[in-house]
Amino acid sequence: MATKSKIGVLGASGYTGSELVRMLLRHPRAEIVLLTAERSAGKAMRDVFPQFSPFDLPTLLAIEGLDWGKLGLDVAFCALPHATTQKVLKDLLAQAPGTKVIDLSADFRLHDTAAYAKWYGHEHHATELQKEAVYGLTEIHRREIRHARLVANPGCYTTCAELPLIPLIKAKAIDLDEIVVDAKSGMTGAGRAAKEAMLFSEVSEGFHAYGVGHHRHMAELDQEFSLAAGRDVVVTFTPHLVPMNRGIYSTIYVRGKRGRTPEDLHAILLKFYMKESFVHVLPFGEVPQSRHVRGSNITFIGVTKDRIEGRAIIMSTLDNLVKGASGQAIQNMNLVMGYAETLGLEQVALFP
Amino acid sequence: MATKSKIGVLGASGYTGSELVRMLLRHPRAEIVLLTAERSAGKAMRDVFPQFSPFDLPTLLAIEGLDWGKLGLDVAFCALPHATTQKVLKDLLAQAPGTKVIDLSADFRLHDTAAYAKWYGHEHHATELQKEAVYGLTEIHRREIRHARLVANPGCYTTCAELPLIPLIKAKAIDLDEIVVDAKSGMTGAGRAAKEAMLFSEVSEGFHAYGVGHHRHMAELDQEFSLAAGRDVVVTFTPHLVPMNRGIYSTIYVRGKRGRTPEDLHAILLKFYMKESFVHVLPFGEVPQSRHVRGSNITFIGVTKDRIEGRAIIMSTLDNLVKGASGQAIQNMNLVMGYAETLGLEQVALFP
Amino acid sequence: MATKSKIGVLGASGYTGSELVRMLLRHPRAEIVLLTAERSAGKAMRDVFPQFSPFDLPTLLAIEGLDWGKLGLDVAFCALPHATTQKVLKDLLAQAPGTKVIDLSADFRLHDTAAYAKWYGHEHHATELQKEAVYGLTEIHRREIRHARLVANPGCYTTCAELPLIPLIKAKAIDLDEIVVDAKSGMTGAGRAAKEAMLFSEVSEGFHAYGVGHHRHMAELDQEFSLAAGRDVVVTFTPHLVPMNRGIYSTIYVRGKRGRTPEDLHAILLKFYMKESFVHVLPFGEVPQSRHVRGSNITFIGVTKDRIEGRAIIMSTLDNLVKGASGQAIQNMNLVMGYAETLGLEQVALFP
Amino acid sequence: MATKSKIGVLGASGYTGSELVRMLLRHPRAEIVLLTAERSAGKAMRDVFPQFSPFDLPTLLAIEGLDWGKLGLDVAFCALPHATTQKVLKDLLAQAPGTKVIDLSADFRLHDTAAYAKWYGHEHHATELQKEAVYGLTEIHRREIRHARLVANPGCYTTCAELPLIPLIKAKAIDLDEIVVDAKSGMTGAGRAAKEAMLFSEVSEGFHAYGVGHHRHMAELDQEFSLAAGRDVVVTFTPHLVPMNRGIYSTIYVRGKRGRTPEDLHAILLKFYMKESFVHVLPFGEVPQSRHVRGSNITFIGVTKDRIEGRAIIMSTLDNLVKGASGQAIQNMNLVMGYAETLGLEQVALFP
Repeated sequence: MATKSKIGVLGASGYTGSELVRMLLRHPRAEIVLLTAERSAGKAMRDVFPQFSPFDLPTLLAIEGLDWGKLGLDVAFCALPHATTQKVLKDLLAQAPGTKVIDLSADFRLHDTAAYAKWYGHEHHATELQKEAVYGLTEIHRREIRHARLVANPGCYTTCAELPLIPLIKAKAIDLDEIVVDAKSGMTGAGRAAKEAMLFSEVSEGFHAYGVGHHRHMAELDQEFSLAAGRDVVVTFTPHLVPMNRGIYSTIYVRGKRGRTPEDLHAILLKFYMKESFVHVLPFGEVPQSRHVRGSNITFIGVTKDRIEGRAIIMSTLDNLVKGASGQAIQNMNLVMGYAETLGLEQVALFP
Repeated sequence: MATKSKIGVLGASGYTGSELVRMLLRHPRAEIVLLTAERSAGKAMRDVFPQFSPFDLPTLLAIEGLDWGKLGLDVAFCALPHATTQKVLKDLLAQAPGTKVIDLSADFRLHDTAAYAKWYGHEHHATELQKEAVYGLTEIHRREIRHARLVANPGCYTTCAELPLIPLIKAKAIDLDEIVVDAKSGMTGAGRAAKEAMLFSEVSEGFHAYGVGHHRHMAELDQEFSLAAGRDVVVTFTPHLVPMNRGIYSTIYVRGKRGRTPEDLHAILLKFYMKESFVHVLPFGEVPQSRHVRGSNITFIGVTKDRIEGRAIIMSTLDNLVKGASGQAIQNMNLVMGYAETLGLEQVALFP
Repeated sequence: MATKSKIGVLGASGYTGSELVRMLLRHPRAEIVLLTAERSAGKAMRDVFPQFSPFDLPTLLAIEGLDWGKLGLDVAFCALPHATTQKVLKDLLAQAPGTKVIDLSADFRLHDTAAYAKWYGHEHHATELQKEAVYGLTEIHRREIRHARLVANPGCYTTCAELPLIPLIKAKAIDLDEIVVDAKSGMTGAGRAAKEAMLFSEVSEGFHAYGVGHHRHMAELDQEFSLAAGRDVVVTFTPHLVPMNRGIYSTIYVRGKRGRTPEDLHAILLKFYMKESFVHVLPFGEVPQSRHVRGSNITFIGVTKDRIEGRAIIMSTLDNLVKGASGQAIQNMNLVMGYAETLGLEQVALFP
Repeated sequence: MATKSKIGVLGASGYTGSELVRMLLRHPRAEIVLLTAERSAGKAMRDVFPQFSPFDLPTLLAIEGLDWGKLGLDVAFCALPHATTQKVLKDLLAQAPGTKVIDLSADFRLHDTAAYAKWYGHEHHATELQKEAVYGLTEIHRREIRHARLVANPGCYTTCAELPLIPLIKAKAIDLDEIVVDAKSGMTGAGRAAKEAMLFSEVSEGFHAYGVGHHRHMAELDQEFSLAAGRDVVVTFTPHLVPMNRGIYSTIYVRGKRGRTPEDLHAILLKFYMKESFVHVLPFGEVPQSRHVRGSNITFIGVTKDRIEGRAIIMSTLDNLVKGASGQAIQNMNLVMGYAETLGLEQVALFP
């Protein structure tokens, strides 16, 4: 039997943390040896997530006082709040330079320190690491990820918008100045912090936009779209909240360039993702539903034509906790560790 | 005490029918004397809608065999399926020419018989009535509605998109060739017919678009926007389904024309609706939520700026069964009958 | 036009507070002159409950510093947290002895100070008022309520269990030692405080019991059932949480005494509530649904036979925020002020 | 690599069918070679369940015309409607006597043909097979299941009530004449047939009982409880519908016999299930939640004391589509085929 990697999950009491544990428990090459949670330190994982009651898992620890060198983790998944992450990872990688890190926070996603300071309101505290970090949109940056020590796992909204748009931008197939991304997210995207606005009674049976004109994921979109285009690209992006637990759904309005029809755009995407296990392009004209990827690491993409000549409507959907966070993180771990990319990620969607 | 109008509700076993009954039961000038339902003829209203169990209501009848002249209805609300409506209303108005009709179907909304035939797949069977019908978007066509005998109550999606856009189009304040309406609806918009796709387990915990590029409400949008603009206007419109009962939410992407800023657009809407009871424009930058108009006849409109210079994002929301259907129908009845426009429609939103 | 009562709502930023405002805004004899909210003092009501944006309402104030004598309220609704209430009401009634108080907290529901201390963990701080307070289960204690200055509005679970059971206990029709009340509540019953356990993602798509064997509403049940029976009665009571906003549903298992059949029990309830506007007993064998009383002040009760000879299953349901809290509070205000009991409470249920 | 069993799923277009496919796709010893669906015959599985779009699966066929002998299935899962099943399985086992059958319908669960006729309203059409069939409550009848050719997979409600009660009945630890099972189910338990009562708008945001006093699963409970007790046992059982997709939750009221305390009952269950992979007894006093077993094959059981001396409240919960149907069916297949019992069933619960 193959040896297992020693895995730590930092920030195991949040939803991306529990989702990592859910999948790592069944990953044939993973052994969870460390779980941390600041406010719940000393508790059992079953006390914060009762679904793990039947399983043996390490007790939750506080990060303060851990000896990273002694722990000798092969892989650390970091699902800590923004800013905290920078400090923790600086320490960790100083003490245990051989540990591979998959960071699920936003802290290392932006290559440009000025952009970081602008969107996050303060200077970056680990600029050396920021330079080293590789942006973990697996299907796009697979080659660099394989050799990375620090992978900055992309945001859920951004993964959902970038997977359909980057191939089209690279192919110079769409007008870059007229892209509208109308995005909708389930409630787990808001995390597990106790906020009035996230109470069941505040969010069920209704729908609304938020962060209109100024959501932080825009910075990631700008970076990756501009990189793909070789020029600055700024898109319109509006996030909304849907009364459901899981799922991101992006409805994307584009205009084909130089005579590209919606069918052409579909063909580009179909070809681009033909060999991918986790991006599935539906037949032209079919519309995806978020529920059909729930619990799986798969993204569904559909392309249809608008009734306005030359315009296409593209829909993409993924599970924000899986392909939009912990699933892609494990996919990146598999690359970094040289495992088969799909290992531990084979779960078929849970519908209904 | 003022006399009451004799009211009939045709098609009382569907959601817009029950919603009419809910509000008419408390309308001080309304007396429900007729309820029809084809498949449930002979049943009590409480058998199809148990919430009416404590109230006295007429037994459900089939339309076949009714003597409209003898019934002498003052007002008939018609919530029948499309096409059926044309035949029924031709008979009704022939036998009882003095009855006022508020039709909630799509049958009389399009003035252009060619457009009707194109979108509905067959010739119109009551073209004389089609010419007579007045489009019942109350705040826009109030004057004609007052004198109408047959009011074609608008669709829910269309009301939600037209209320914010028509004033801007009339004011020549936005670019007419770049309007995107990303619309989301609760499940009652799909009606009460037993369809697999509308089962709880098929629609809860997920999100999806439908009718992409070819939804029938587009025809109404085209008619009203073109009328307001004095030229042909074709917008991009994508409907989606949200796992909630009630609510339409439109996120509308526009570009100001001739230097109009998002703030200017807001000012136009604020002024246009200043004296309206049922359209409420939020302060600039505020984002509405569908839950805050649930059960009420009020539309909330919010205007924000996009981060792209010159573009605005407008959000409007209403309860599809109230302002989007039965509430606006009663508002139109009030106009037609010379009652105070808000009569029977004062209910404050039910949140949470 | 009749004069209006000057009304204050203490604790207007919670769900029972907003529900009071929703109904009082349309109550023909009510004028809201005071709204309080400690943490939101200084804000507009629309800032904490955007559904009130179109309406003129007083700014939210802190209680500290109010001059109750000067305010001269006719009625104060008190929707404050437990314990706080005792202090506030002692002050209020000392300064403004003519103000009528409808208290929605649990503070004055228990007549027995020892029972209070046992269930709430500390001595009562306003024992004089506790003696004066009248338990506000309207249909049962109507006579005393009419003359009360301080009405202790019952809990939602207790109202739902007491309305069907008290008439049967009074009629000595059921075995008192074998009553099981399996109760289910929507999420608004848990209030608006930001708690992790009440987040959308924690409570949607699942079901669970809580407070098993030790829920505080038991004390109220004990008091009222024992009062009705003339001896101590202790029932089994288990509350559960349902992923819905509104509604309490009680499934009650009883055994008929001295040959009473389920049909007999039904007849007793039917007769007891024959003339009541807000308690509706369904035909024998019919099963109520919580959704059919949503937003209304009505309780539905159904009685069926168990397949075990002599046993009946009784189901009752109400909207926890209306008949289970704010609606019954207004019903009690109507009694106290000598208004028609149904005033401002005529709203028909909002279904779907 | 071990050889794979050739598997057929009869009735693949329903929820238990799709759930079988979901798990069998990842079962290391299963190869799906046949999928049937009458009304959808000729379609691809992705047309009826889009979540399977990325996977290769056989085209849906009609049963009529299949040559069971030629197909040579190792295992047939039968998820057909009641009554149809009898005819199909008689043919199948006549033509292919070596095929093992796991039947998910109710057709072979009752050993007593008179009981069958009483509860289902007609004579049984395959009485020979009825005698042969083994009741597939795995943890209780494991030994017989290993040698069975035809396993009658239990109902979801019954599995949830039988797992906690049978060990207590066998141990003679509870009063047999006073058992109340108050059961709650998610909507997938109602199947995928298009019925008005199961529409999203009819069932969301509400709660209700149904089948009160006469639900067919009672017959199964009677059979298994009486078998365990060695005498007739009839329990009170009331099913309810919860607005969620998955999950059964049973709140069970019992009285300890001969001095058995709630703690004793807990100890009995803990011991009984100590070595089981799919039944997890929580520490005494802990209350399970249905969401923590969602998507997994595990049952959670909690035991608490009632405040009434000698009475206990037991709560059990499972995923109705997994342990309540398709998961237990695969567990039974594993036994019948001699595979490890947990094969293909290791999925950790998907929460949130």
